[in-house]
Amino acid sequence: MHNQPHDHIVKSYDEEQRRLLDETLRMGEMAASQLEAALDVVQRRDDNAAARIIENDEAIDTLEQEISHDVMKLALRGPMARDLREILAAIRIASDIERIGDYAANVAKRSTALNLAPPLPQISGLQSIGKLAVQQLRDVLVAYRDNDVDAARAVRDRDADLDAAYTALFRELLTYMMEDARSITPCTHLLFMAKNIERIGDHATNIAENVWFLVRGNDELPPREKRDESNTVAP
Amino acid sequence: MHNQPHDHIVKSYDEEQRRLLDETLRMGEMAASQLEAALDVVQRRDDNAAARIIENDEAIDTLEQEISHDVMKLALRGPMARDLREILAAIRIASDIERIGDYAANVAKRSTALNLAPPLPQISGLQSIGKLAVQQLRDVLVAYRDNDVDAARAVRDRDADLDAAYTALFRELLTYMMEDARSITPCTHLLFMAKNIERIGDHATNIAENVWFLVRGNDELPPREKRDESNTVAP
Repeated sequence: MHNQPHDHIVKSYDEEQRRLLDETLRMGEMAASQLEAALDVVQRRDDNAAARIIENDEAIDTLEQEISHDVMKLALRGPMARDLREILAAIRIASDIERIGDYAANVAKRSTALNLAPPLPQISGLQSIGKLAVQQLRDVLVAYRDNDVDAARAVRDRDADLDAAYTALFRELLTYMMEDARSITPCTHLLFMAKNIERIGDHATNIAENVWFLVRGNDELPPREKRDESNTVAP
Repeated sequence: MHNQPHDHIVKSYDEEQRRLLDETLRMGEMAASQLEAALDVVQRRDDNAAARIIENDEAIDTLEQEISHDVMKLALRGPMARDLREILAAIRIASDIERIGDYAANVAKRSTALNLAPPLPQISGLQSIGKLAVQQLRDVLVAYRDNDVDAARAVRDRDADLDAAYTALFRELLTYMMEDARSITPCTHLLFMAKNIERIGDHATNIAENVWFLVRGNDELPPREKRDESNTVAP
């Protein structure tokens, strides 16, 4: 009795599942664009554009709600193991993308605080790690679309590069703050913006792990390298 | 055909669902204890205890895996709408608790970096927001156990207090850094530890929203107040 669909016009399970994948990919692309736009407003010091990015984050949140709704509808049909993994992967990946959107909006939000002080030279370092994060996100979305576990694993492994670049920027910012007390507040914003980007990398890694789970089920992924050492930098 | 259970000995759906709730609550209590332990090692400057907390985080991660597995088993039985909400809520709540565990471990990790410098007076501010966060987490777990939407909503609303306390501590730390350049590195660790705790509050809020969703379905929660203004502090 649980398998009766509730809609009058019933789409095939495959059609609904395809729709779920498309929505999730679209959500991912929105988050990637938001992150690019956020990096751009940091560079251009454009408060109005920053406000638009913050506003746009709502569209990503709305899409996550729609995906949750579609997941519920699909799960009500009582899917089999592989189909269920599709559903679970979609809901987890949507949740990671939602967080990425939040972090992108946060970068935009802090940019407006940065614009109250003179430009900082470390902005270029932020741009570099930001570009790495955008690439990681785009690559993992392609891996998800293509069910490509090797590409997913490559994304997961490249997160170490992003962590290393983040740690280097973190140290550079601390040194700069020690040399010039007036830079402390803007540099603190930059530290958090850099951390937001490093976290976006972690969420891209989560997505990669979900692509692995989707294709391979509970086979274990080989352990990964970790290189974010900023949280053990000696005072 | 999708409703055939795969196990030879079949537990009742209700028993399995009860087990899922119990596991999720146990996971939540583990995260609350980890956070308390992390706050304690910050106070006592105990590197060995910090290492144990970081290690213990694995148990929370393992429990999340088990919960995902149980969710899959339950979803394969083709649950009805309310049961499906239980399942979706459990998997989302487990994911929030997993993140809370990560943040607690991060607080412990950064404490060992802090211990290389003389103690900072702002530790007491960190303890205060930490205690608020522990309380929020414990309260929302009770709300989840009892399906208590009013309690969940109260937790959600109290997050504004945690945000306000975090913002105050953030400003205090910036001022301190400006007065004494030697404090910059340890204060930066404290800033991130405070941010971790503020994020734990956000995850408690997410859990509260899931309790609401579980009981009320897609009825909208009334909008909430936001008081974390640290990301717009002027340089």
